[in-house]
Amino acid sequence: MPVEAPRHIRLTSHSGGFGALPIQWGAPTAPERGPVVGTTTNRSHRNVIGTHSGSYSVYRALAVASGALSRQHRADLTNTSPTDIIGPYPQWTDPSKIVSLDPWGAMVSEAFAAELGAGYDIRPTIAVTQAHVILPEVIEGLQAGRLKADGRVLTSGGAAMVTKAAIEPVWWLPGVAKRFGCSETDLRRVLFEETGGMYPELVTRSDLEVFLPPIGGQTIYIFGDPRDLADPSVELTARVHDECNGSDVFGSDICTCRPYLTHAIEECIQASQRGGVGLVAYSRKEGRALGEVTKFLVYNARKRQVGGDTADQYFARTECVAGVQDMRFQELMPDVLHWLGVRKIHRLVSMSNMKYDAITGSGIEIGERVNIPEDLIPADARVEMDAKVAAGYFTPGAVPNAEELKKPKGRGLEKS
Amino acid sequence: MPVEAPRHIRLTSHSGGFGALPIQWGAPTAPERGPVVGTTTNRSHRNVIGTHSGSYSVYRALAVASGALSRQHRADLTNTSPTDIIGPYPQWTDPSKIVSLDPWGAMVSEAFAAELGAGYDIRPTIAVTQAHVILPEVIEGLQAGRLKADGRVLTSGGAAMVTKAAIEPVWWLPGVAKRFGCSETDLRRVLFEETGGMYPELVTRSDLEVFLPPIGGQTIYIFGDPRDLADPSVELTARVHDECNGSDVFGSDICTCRPYLTHAIEECIQASQRGGVGLVAYSRKEGRALGEVTKFLVYNARKRQVGGDTADQYFARTECVAGVQDMRFQELMPDVLHWLGVRKIHRLVSMSNMKYDAITGSGIEIGERVNIPEDLIPADARVEMDAKVAAGYFTPGAVPNAEELKKPKGRGLEKS
Repeated sequence: MPVEAPRHIRLTSHSGGFGALPIQWGAPTAPERGPVVGTTTNRSHRNVIGTHSGSYSVYRALAVASGALSRQHRADLTNTSPTDIIGPYPQWTDPSKIVSLDPWGAMVSEAFAAELGAGYDIRPTIAVTQAHVILPEVIEGLQAGRLKADGRVLTSGGAAMVTKAAIEPVWWLPGVAKRFGCSETDLRRVLFEETGGMYPELVTRSDLEVFLPPIGGQTIYIFGDPRDLADPSVELTARVHDECNGSDVFGSDICTCRPYLTHAIEECIQASQRGGVGLVAYSRKEGRALGEVTKFLVYNARKRQVGGDTADQYFARTECVAGVQDMRFQELMPDVLHWLGVRKIHRLVSMSNMKYDAITGSGIEIGERVNIPEDLIPADARVEMDAKVAAGYFTPGAVPNAEELKKPKGRGLEKS
Repeated sequence: MPVEAPRHIRLTSHSGGFGALPIQWGAPTAPERGPVVGTTTNRSHRNVIGTHSGSYSVYRALAVASGALSRQHRADLTNTSPTDIIGPYPQWTDPSKIVSLDPWGAMVSEAFAAELGAGYDIRPTIAVTQAHVILPEVIEGLQAGRLKADGRVLTSGGAAMVTKAAIEPVWWLPGVAKRFGCSETDLRRVLFEETGGMYPELVTRSDLEVFLPPIGGQTIYIFGDPRDLADPSVELTARVHDECNGSDVFGSDICTCRPYLTHAIEECIQASQRGGVGLVAYSRKEGRALGEVTKFLVYNARKRQVGGDTADQYFARTECVAGVQDMRFQELMPDVLHWLGVRKIHRLVSMSNMKYDAITGSGIEIGERVNIPEDLIPADARVEMDAKVAAGYFTPGAVPNAEELKKPKGRGLEKS
């Protein structure tokens, strides 16, 4: 194999062990950057900490344990390549712009053909496909006349045409540490200790700079031509949305998550229809990345506290249970925008100052900010909305005063 | 502390280190079972592998790394206790019935009051709350006359009253191994190796039998009185649903996930209104627990293959990419039903033979099986439905023959 190996393949790295290819994050070309190899079949080829599919590597282990999956299985990637070409963009080779995903992750078959041919098990960390999405709110929008079918972006049956991509987290630890203002050594130690001892290589293998964390990734939905995302002269309407299963799927009325999301999708459809492009980036950060158990504990504490569920105690209740108000840390979020080549968002469908600051701080211009229409805010979600606006969320309306924030606007618990 | 420590607290275990309390899985009472202690603040108290909040422990680490969270923070659980009492049920103390969640996880404040008082950082792994859920499909059901508001289960505005619970995975490894038909030693080794080396304690600390895996958990939605779930004389309508973000949230038409889920919710509302009780158990197993990147890769392979997207190649395409057809492994799924005391499901809203077999195999009786109504199946999802029915899914209708399965019924890709 060494003799016939194509150019750019060095079968030993300075420290990654025999056969492991080096990763030079942010290098100008894919061969110079090197592939991310998280395989469990040939350990000597690994050049990262962790493995693919985020949390689902645990299920992969169950598949092997039960005898259903051969541990030697290698993915047959025939016909799986992206339906739409994304990039490469200049941002891909700027190690300050992207630190939490692999920009070459969708095109491994092309970018690392030589290495694949030489026997490396290189898996895509991004998959790009096309879909028709049918949301009941969009159908209602057609019926109410808010939306018009054009047969191109939106059918008369309410199906919107999208390109979508699923993205696994791929963390370049030196860059992640920089984003959080700590040393790489501290980041590695804390990642190890605060997870109860996950991946000792975080502290023992400082030569491995890339970590595939077992966390959820992102999904993006593009309404229109993906290439237009990188053209600042094309109007871009975008929402960056953090998962909230209770509202996004089940329609809980305690927050505005699904109404804001479906409003954003309507805005994206309209943007695409008037010659622009729309983008929704959905991140798996349930309950402000505290998880749903903590979220439900906080709900109970809010609704049972003396004085009822009030905006002035909204953040305090989360902090009592979780120690922080929010763990979503928008510092890594803009990476996906840079992967798509975004330089300007003309209309950001979000009121969050944290998201706004993270995006503009990363060098992307934002024009208008689009708030959720008042009539889409469920009554019980008024507490959250008031608290957020008082804390600095964008609003075109009035900011509630201290008196207003003390009023119990949330429902109490019925049965306890 | 040792002198005043309340009864049942042994400050040393045989092997868990000084101060760690032993866990005796399936013991008859909570004090005998012992609390699950996954704290990162006092390491000598830990009696499990891993830590709380599943994947979100990684975000917790980022919170500490950035200086936002003190690593000494301990949750203030004031007012967070369950809104509805679940159990205890006889199933809780049968170590063959529940192996992947902590039945005492919702009531740690009561069950382990002595240990909490003695300074142990014991966190709930289950949170129970109440909610109003408003789904557009339910509103449409009201308008179409399929559903009737009664002001108790369903308001005229379309809000359904539920009790819901979020459940973190807590795996008792000897029991999990038994479910998968392998030895505990093999399970531990494979969990370590196939995740790329996560938690060496899996292989080095055989004395620690409980693992908090960094994977998503479950959420349950109860329509009616939770106590009725344990009464076989009360009609129970139930769906066990595995996450599909693309359909559940975004309404992709390639599968039937959201339509089946919202149909089940309608069935649950109706069941509750006629004096029964409804249950939806939602498991975080995106894309058959393969993750969304793999799922989208498979979509492309299906739609590009010679002959088009046909039912007869449906499972083969997944197997090419992933090595297995499915990684959801319903073996652990019935645990949540046993936690709720379920002994009989009168109407199971699912066509899956895997789910049916897992539930009945665990000793729960199933009456009727409810298929998804034909008019809720999107055209592009016909491929999946035919393939599943041919493979053994329940159907009250005809099973497609080999000729039928060869017909390309799925849409091709438009732009590639």
